Amino acid sequence: MITMRKMNVAIVGATGAVGTQMIKLLESSSLPLGNVKFLTSKRSAGKQLSFKGASKTIEELVPESFEGIDLALFSAGGGISAEFAPEAVKRGAIVVDNTSHFRMDPEVPLVVPEVNPEALRSHKGIIANPNCSTIQMMVALEPIRQAFGLKRVIVSTYQAVSGAGNQAMEELKQQTRDYLADKPVDQWQMEILPCGGDKKHYPLAFNALPQIDVFAEAGYTYEEWKMINETKKIMEDDTIKVSATCVRIPVMSGHSESIYIETEKVASVAEIQTLITNAPGAVLEDDPSQQIYPQAINSVGRKETFVGRIRKDPDEEVGVHLWVVSDNLLKGAAWNSIQIAEKMYEMNLFD
Amino acid sequence: MITMRKMNVAIVGATGAVGTQMIKLLESSSLPLGNVKFLTSKRSAGKQLSFKGASKTIEELVPESFEGIDLALFSAGGGISAEFAPEAVKRGAIVVDNTSHFRMDPEVPLVVPEVNPEALRSHKGIIANPNCSTIQMMVALEPIRQAFGLKRVIVSTYQAVSGAGNQAMEELKQQTRDYLADKPVDQWQMEILPCGGDKKHYPLAFNALPQIDVFAEAGYTYEEWKMINETKKIMEDDTIKVSATCVRIPVMSGHSESIYIETEKVASVAEIQTLITNAPGAVLEDDPSQQIYPQAINSVGRKETFVGRIRKDPDEEVGVHLWVVSDNLLKGAAWNSIQIAEKMYEMNLFD
Repeated sequence: MITMRKMNVAIVGATGAVGTQMIKLLESSSLPLGNVKFLTSKRSAGKQLSFKGASKTIEELVPESFEGIDLALFSAGGGISAEFAPEAVKRGAIVVDNTSHFRMDPEVPLVVPEVNPEALRSHKGIIANPNCSTIQMMVALEPIRQAFGLKRVIVSTYQAVSGAGNQAMEELKQQTRDYLADKPVDQWQMEILPCGGDKKHYPLAFNALPQIDVFAEAGYTYEEWKMINETKKIMEDDTIKVSATCVRIPVMSGHSESIYIETEKVASVAEIQTLITNAPGAVLEDDPSQQIYPQAINSVGRKETFVGRIRKDPDEEVGVHLWVVSDNLLKGAAWNSIQIAEKMYEMNLFD
Repeated sequence: MITMRKMNVAIVGATGAVGTQMIKLLESSSLPLGNVKFLTSKRSAGKQLSFKGASKTIEELVPESFEGIDLALFSAGGGISAEFAPEAVKRGAIVVDNTSHFRMDPEVPLVVPEVNPEALRSHKGIIANPNCSTIQMMVALEPIRQAFGLKRVIVSTYQAVSGAGNQAMEELKQQTRDYLADKPVDQWQMEILPCGGDKKHYPLAFNALPQIDVFAEAGYTYEEWKMINETKKIMEDDTIKVSATCVRIPVMSGHSESIYIETEKVASVAEIQTLITNAPGAVLEDDPSQQIYPQAINSVGRKETFVGRIRKDPDEEVGVHLWVVSDNLLKGAAWNSIQIAEKMYEMNLFD
């Protein structure tokens, strides 16, 4: 008789927008859980969080927190991951990191379990969870790439505020109240958006902000470079042309994406619809005659990626347009991290 | 001494979202106004509207309304234009029609005054005002086309609700209140959006709806076909490849557009910035280092089209991305109509 080893798990950033979802998902995970501990900065330590009906005290994150931990799920900002992920690995834990810190490290697998699970085998202790907007695009495009090849991706995003964290969500709510109370825009609460660490802050309520994360080379934001670079790494193909325009809109949760692709071989709409129907993690919602298409508001709380508005470019025979929606806190973050852990367990990579 | 002939003007659809703006713009127009009359359906007739400080009674629209009228500005739906624009022309008026009804009629000029004013000369009584989302794109792209040629356009829109009219704006406001009051989504007011005439209605508050107007051929909506077909007509070039994904987002006024273009000749970002700076009706707002980019909320009440986020595609040397924003009720509708009338007056086309 085989005794299944219990797995001790730490969640770093347990009180954040993503951490909260990780806890919920861990409660119903197939992983054989042993001890589960919640770690945060000193500020939140001592507070209580519920897990499987019992109350748990949040502990302060220190290097020693990871003694005896098998799996550490990080979602507390790149700086925290940079400092503490190596400490966790040193103590024998496997780290699944939801920040961008390790994503482009050639030593670190960057994984969407439906797309490149085999990359997990080469891990050296840390596995990176891709950017939210990249993950859902990969779920939709990988089946098409496998069947028809993929030459080119041009994506414009419609991203929800929960990707910027709990405080940003509160800011959007407050701005919305300010709008309804006829308060002049310059008196709205503006402390975080579009990007907490940046110099200027703008209203998001009833607005669209073409800036997510700070600006980087060539006029692109980091968020845009993440989508460009992560796509090539996950698909293991540097020849795919990728460009992105990342935009924050006043939606609480659920990222939407208008994606244009060019395939190697000509694909029909019906063929792509069949691929999406059969793709792991994807759901086809595509019937213009019945006004069926993915909507951010319907994606909330769902683990799948929803794909619709599939149509051929009017002038380019290998060109196809799609509308892709997913809950950015789940498939875009917490769920993909838990899925990575479950997949690694299934592949015996914890031994 | 020349006596300037006074011009009698009728506004059809005077109480609508666009009509209201037309009245304001007419008050400060350079046109030599004679009689001005406001026409609507029977339902609103008899109500009062203010014009240049005086109160005016709204009249019911009948064919005889156009007796003695020189200029009739229509913005009351395609059916009204279809029925009454010919009546106005028959009585000697020039019609500037803001609906889609006549836009693709080869006999009818489709005009953005900054782009193709010469097309006005061939008018046969009716001039069509292009779709809001097309107009601002034309203002941004025409100077680039003239300097570098234009092979291709792929646009994803972020459109405001005022384009769907006053009732749709009220619906978004009510849904926003419902959200803040924690009312379940299925109990929100949903009677108009995404499209008044269509079968199903969905929430727009905190959502993104990839449907504007009803669905038409090949999985595209009419709004998308408008952008595709009108671009080719206005630029007088059927060889430009154009595709569009039109999306309504919870913004009151101000359409934003993520536009990808391919030019004939290679253009630098600096060259395009200079073109936009010098382009009529366009304003460059493009400095990533200072987080300067166009925003819907800032465009409201402005007549210009704002252009920023100009950057080269990372992989395609003739590929350029732009973010283009304008007040859809002004340059996208009322202001472009008034501009057409003023341009025709300047060109002596009322004689």
